[in-house]
Amino acid sequence: MSNAQRYSLLAEQLAETGVDIEVARAALKHQRIETPSWGYANSGTRFKVYPWPGAARSVPEKLDDAALVHSLCGIAPTVAIHIPWDRPPDDDYAGMRQYAEAKGIAIGAVNPNVFQSEDYRLGSLGNPSAAIREAALDHIIECCEIMPKVNSDILSLWFADGTNYAGQDDLRARKQRFEQGLGVAYSRLPGGSRMMIEYKFFEPAFYSTDVADWGMALVMALKLGPQAQVLVDLGHHAQGVNIEQIVAALLDEGRLGGFHFNNRKYADDDLIVGSVNPYELFLIYNELVAAGEAARDVAYMIDQSHNIEGKIGPMLQSVLNCQEALAKALIVPRARLAAAQAAGDVLQAHRLLTDAFRADVRPLLIAVREEMGVPADPIAAYRAGNYEAQRAEARGSQLGSGGYAV
Amino acid sequence: MSNAQRYSLLAEQLAETGVDIEVARAALKHQRIETPSWGYANSGTRFKVYPWPGAARSVPEKLDDAALVHSLCGIAPTVAIHIPWDRPPDDDYAGMRQYAEAKGIAIGAVNPNVFQSEDYRLGSLGNPSAAIREAALDHIIECCEIMPKVNSDILSLWFADGTNYAGQDDLRARKQRFEQGLGVAYSRLPGGSRMMIEYKFFEPAFYSTDVADWGMALVMALKLGPQAQVLVDLGHHAQGVNIEQIVAALLDEGRLGGFHFNNRKYADDDLIVGSVNPYELFLIYNELVAAGEAARDVAYMIDQSHNIEGKIGPMLQSVLNCQEALAKALIVPRARLAAAQAAGDVLQAHRLLTDAFRADVRPLLIAVREEMGVPADPIAAYRAGNYEAQRAEARGSQLGSGGYAV
Amino acid sequence: MSNAQRYSLLAEQLAETGVDIEVARAALKHQRIETPSWGYANSGTRFKVYPWPGAARSVPEKLDDAALVHSLCGIAPTVAIHIPWDRPPDDDYAGMRQYAEAKGIAIGAVNPNVFQSEDYRLGSLGNPSAAIREAALDHIIECCEIMPKVNSDILSLWFADGTNYAGQDDLRARKQRFEQGLGVAYSRLPGGSRMMIEYKFFEPAFYSTDVADWGMALVMALKLGPQAQVLVDLGHHAQGVNIEQIVAALLDEGRLGGFHFNNRKYADDDLIVGSVNPYELFLIYNELVAAGEAARDVAYMIDQSHNIEGKIGPMLQSVLNCQEALAKALIVPRARLAAAQAAGDVLQAHRLLTDAFRADVRPLLIAVREEMGVPADPIAAYRAGNYEAQRAEARGSQLGSGGYAV
Amino acid sequence: MSNAQRYSLLAEQLAETGVDIEVARAALKHQRIETPSWGYANSGTRFKVYPWPGAARSVPEKLDDAALVHSLCGIAPTVAIHIPWDRPPDDDYAGMRQYAEAKGIAIGAVNPNVFQSEDYRLGSLGNPSAAIREAALDHIIECCEIMPKVNSDILSLWFADGTNYAGQDDLRARKQRFEQGLGVAYSRLPGGSRMMIEYKFFEPAFYSTDVADWGMALVMALKLGPQAQVLVDLGHHAQGVNIEQIVAALLDEGRLGGFHFNNRKYADDDLIVGSVNPYELFLIYNELVAAGEAARDVAYMIDQSHNIEGKIGPMLQSVLNCQEALAKALIVPRARLAAAQAAGDVLQAHRLLTDAFRADVRPLLIAVREEMGVPADPIAAYRAGNYEAQRAEARGSQLGSGGYAV
Repeated sequence: MSNAQRYSLLAEQLAETGVDIEVARAALKHQRIETPSWGYANSGTRFKVYPWPGAARSVPEKLDDAALVHSLCGIAPTVAIHIPWDRPPDDDYAGMRQYAEAKGIAIGAVNPNVFQSEDYRLGSLGNPSAAIREAALDHIIECCEIMPKVNSDILSLWFADGTNYAGQDDLRARKQRFEQGLGVAYSRLPGGSRMMIEYKFFEPAFYSTDVADWGMALVMALKLGPQAQVLVDLGHHAQGVNIEQIVAALLDEGRLGGFHFNNRKYADDDLIVGSVNPYELFLIYNELVAAGEAARDVAYMIDQSHNIEGKIGPMLQSVLNCQEALAKALIVPRARLAAAQAAGDVLQAHRLLTDAFRADVRPLLIAVREEMGVPADPIAAYRAGNYEAQRAEARGSQLGSGGYAV
Repeated sequence: MSNAQRYSLLAEQLAETGVDIEVARAALKHQRIETPSWGYANSGTRFKVYPWPGAARSVPEKLDDAALVHSLCGIAPTVAIHIPWDRPPDDDYAGMRQYAEAKGIAIGAVNPNVFQSEDYRLGSLGNPSAAIREAALDHIIECCEIMPKVNSDILSLWFADGTNYAGQDDLRARKQRFEQGLGVAYSRLPGGSRMMIEYKFFEPAFYSTDVADWGMALVMALKLGPQAQVLVDLGHHAQGVNIEQIVAALLDEGRLGGFHFNNRKYADDDLIVGSVNPYELFLIYNELVAAGEAARDVAYMIDQSHNIEGKIGPMLQSVLNCQEALAKALIVPRARLAAAQAAGDVLQAHRLLTDAFRADVRPLLIAVREEMGVPADPIAAYRAGNYEAQRAEARGSQLGSGGYAV
Repeated sequence: MSNAQRYSLLAEQLAETGVDIEVARAALKHQRIETPSWGYANSGTRFKVYPWPGAARSVPEKLDDAALVHSLCGIAPTVAIHIPWDRPPDDDYAGMRQYAEAKGIAIGAVNPNVFQSEDYRLGSLGNPSAAIREAALDHIIECCEIMPKVNSDILSLWFADGTNYAGQDDLRARKQRFEQGLGVAYSRLPGGSRMMIEYKFFEPAFYSTDVADWGMALVMALKLGPQAQVLVDLGHHAQGVNIEQIVAALLDEGRLGGFHFNNRKYADDDLIVGSVNPYELFLIYNELVAAGEAARDVAYMIDQSHNIEGKIGPMLQSVLNCQEALAKALIVPRARLAAAQAAGDVLQAHRLLTDAFRADVRPLLIAVREEMGVPADPIAAYRAGNYEAQRAEARGSQLGSGGYAV
Repeated sequence: MSNAQRYSLLAEQLAETGVDIEVARAALKHQRIETPSWGYANSGTRFKVYPWPGAARSVPEKLDDAALVHSLCGIAPTVAIHIPWDRPPDDDYAGMRQYAEAKGIAIGAVNPNVFQSEDYRLGSLGNPSAAIREAALDHIIECCEIMPKVNSDILSLWFADGTNYAGQDDLRARKQRFEQGLGVAYSRLPGGSRMMIEYKFFEPAFYSTDVADWGMALVMALKLGPQAQVLVDLGHHAQGVNIEQIVAALLDEGRLGGFHFNNRKYADDDLIVGSVNPYELFLIYNELVAAGEAARDVAYMIDQSHNIEGKIGPMLQSVLNCQEALAKALIVPRARLAAAQAAGDVLQAHRLLTDAFRADVRPLLIAVREEMGVPADPIAAYRAGNYEAQRAEARGSQLGSGGYAV
């Protein structure tokens, strides 16, 4: 049976629930997922970095790999960069941008790194030393200046800041230092751009983390102004936290900046998004679809650490998992769902939502891919394309500039 | 060796670290802990309520027991009430207040109950039904009206609202309903009083809770105005959450209303505060002491469920655990600690803080009690006083109006 | 399009991966899920029991409801009973059995209740009092004697035993008391029957639980003998625990007795199985299917607490969720999966497994139902059948004998 | 006031509860805590290793530092080694042993490393490749052969083995491979020695860990024989797990081999033992003291990762925290406690235990230290002794052979 036939069958099924598959198809064509430059390089745990044959060793190689992913799936046209990991020779950011554009992609979010210099042992903007706070701020401002050079309108901030022992530092003082430093950074944001503040439950700090949850990030964003928003990384919550509810709350407050997608079973495991709990990813997309216009400017970025399963394959899989989750969220019969909710029909409302998750949306996804001119099965195409062997031969198996999901 | 001698010895020890024991002693005399009326009644888990011989069966009996606790420890002069559990005959709130005063105590926070009518199956202020939201709001407004009658200036709000299944209701709609309802309630607050919004991670709702964390409570409080604050219950967080950091953040924002004290190892276990993790209680008090004036108006309330260990004994123990935690926080050598923190001397700063926890402050506590005219060992006095047997004989062992920690 | 056509389409899809849909169909016809008598009665949280109109109030009504569920789905032919909740008048167990059989079902596991008498405040088999341990043991032995009367070959043991405070009791002594008591109970098991020992992480005990994890249950089972096995309740683990790995380990040890199915996001939430994490349920069934003969005697029982969503509807949904999970596990292409695993092809192995989860198996399930002579959509049939209104009218809306998931 | 006077005062206090301080003092003199060679080297998180000035760069330097710790506290006479991190030139293990002895210490547990070669990407004994399993086994056998050369009688096994994705490998097959490999290793254990099997909840594997909990470790130990025991690392459990109960259970089964001490708030944070929850450490020691002879052969080892707080200072602090916890466990009034437990007096039993924790045992610890001829305050002595500056000057601040707590 052809996919066209399967697609018709799915369309028929959905029509029975009042859902128009063409609306879903149109929406899927506008989906965009950003991949991270560091996801193409070698990475690991504190115990070991296993080098992957052919992993990217340089910025051009990372951009090549991101471009390959985009060419195979059609919905990953931008790549996030991390400074200084991705600092080009002679700070030639214009050249970097042109290189990307020549490959058919663009630079996305700019991520300062204020955790890998030895100065940052006790933090960056939260450090008790004014000189180190200053150095961190200088680096963030440098990134603000890089943004227009690479045509980026997102400054994506993650801080490793925190303490390991009760008493190590003054918790309120650290909060105040952060608010002060972010205020300066905010004033240096390029016009029309946004600052996204990422929060994280723990790691690498093990007693307190200065921006530990969405409440702390939101408090800071509210004080800074409308260009400051909150970034949700799926791996940065305590066990059991209802992430889709946080997404709903931030959307309702107009402060959801974007996502760092990945998945975890335990801590910040940084696995392929949707691999641990595909239903949760669907529920998150369900909130985004339900919010309509309120979710218009949300930035979708992958931030993962592929330690043992390859680099490009799992990145592709991650993008595809997001595509599938969005497709399922798009076929939720919203009018019927709202009616069941209003009637207090608990079981029926739950069933209407989960029936959309149960559907096999692969015929819809294939139709979208065909329309976009990308392979029906991007991973099969990747595996068939000999890309991995070519890279292994050309690049070898060596540890280049490290990449860690944050 | 007399306590006076032990006290001198402790004073000498503390002086070596630059701490004046007299300052701590003075502060301890101003400590106040509110006990909950429902803590004197029978309570249990979903599996079983074990009746305790002599547990309070009525409002006067609860007030009698709270008065006994205060007479034995000297720092528990108020009692929180829960409406309708504590509704007096003919709504004679003035009479209730006078009864309490005659016993040497006063009424503290007023707690509406919007979870035990059958109407509230799908929530109160978050319910999809406008009529039920209205009923819940009416009850809250009734409590606002009760406040002046009992001389209370705290409206303490806990909501069981939430959903059990994904899809059951619209998460943003519920948030908006809450904000609307609280707005009306806020407008009805008596002048000079405060509304405290309690958050809870989960239970009794098992998929989403409408006010699930301090961020959601703070967002609501910020919209309402300065009389709205956040209430921190120690058992209402995900595992691993750094509660003292939330306390510090709320203090810094001027929005820490108060506490519901208890302790837990797993979920909202509602055990004796300080029994599971006394160090955590110390760290919380450490933030409060460190904040100085910013913590001046914080309300300290116990909210526990003593299911198997008696009623009055564990309530006394809870008050005493708070007293001990405060005493230890008061003897932290703050100047030295600040110096070590500024110098980035991680281990030394940690040691300075934990040495205060290591100290045996019982001689100080006994001195304070002697000065206040209460027994040196309130629990020993309680056990020696035959109070329990008298109550068991007078009241019997039967299930009266239930009490549940919230 | 007819279901026959959809079925052919699915068969074709599966054939491409080397899977024969007929094998899956045959296996599905042998699936059996036991429902619990107490799941048809009213239940709630410690805060409130909301009565559901028409909830079962008596043993015959519970059996009627279980029979209705079976008649609608065809794979729930037995019902677990709880003594004394389900004790028949005059202890007429033969009559109870006949009543069930007349309704087309049978009695399944017998569950003693050693937690709801006031004697059990400090435990049952772990109680410091020898007299109370004796009473608990007597009740368990009574249940052993009931088993042949109701044709049951499973004694299902769950203990609420534990402590709430460090120091409350001696942990090793409690373990030894348990081993001794279980030894006596084991000696009284009817020939050919099995004892299943359930473990639970916490609740209602909040400091320690005497049988807290699968390790403690297994240690006891190993000492008792081959008729003793471990029972896995999906809600009885710490956050993050990999349940399917425990299932695999117990299968490998020959000690997996059975399941109490339900689902949770937080603690022992006792929600509809598969409603919080359907992927996890699939992974559990995947281990069971993979184990083949080693899983032959596993008992599948539902143990849930439907507090706000009705009684019979959610029970049906639970059975259907298990059916769907098994169907997806049956279509995993095991030969290809084993080959990818052996080759260390991490991403490919993961994809082969998850593609089975992605499939929409509803055509297969409908085919199985048609063959079994039950409705294609049992819940739609239930809703259309007016069963709920009839029950509400006949039984009213009142609190009968409580039912709690354990 | 002199310490002798403070000691008398404490003795008097304890005598009132029926506790003889001299018994505690005698026991404290026999306490032994092993420190890990890798704890003296630089370590970090996956994000960054911050080099500490003067950190040990070689085996002799690690032994020097361990000897310094022992000379300052008197109770840390052995040091655990990790192969190949600590492999001496020309495999001269006799020379290594002599070097240690010349410094006044001895070699303790031998830890094979089967996770840092690139071969181990998919595991060691659990690897799907027979050749890699063989290589791992060869290394473990090599360690068995090293044991007599360094006079060690403990083989301490930790495995990073597991999977990151559902489906990646067959869970039962991995378990069986482990049992087979360990069987061979067990057969190569030197006479009179013990194999300790460590379990870990997660990390570096993020979906399943082959030896994930004490139950899995115990099942393996039981199959191997009496020389196989379980090793408890305090950071290797899910949140909320009652570790002291696991300790009690393993003691009761005769299978508690030893500990890897550290502390965590979140995951395997590897912080100073007792720094996050000193009460928990006390409760663990309480079980060990209560078990008496059954705990005679337990091995106490520290396994931490001091990333930002120095190396030798925090190691000393860790040893001292264990000393304090043992001291408090030794002054629990066991007869009174047992009587309260037998009487079911919950609150009193809890108070008797926690009063021991409340005591300030520093006078007792100082007395013990004086008797042992070590400084009364080992950390003050360390800080005063200029050891750190000397090491920084001699060794510089560079990254040597990495050390990670496992």
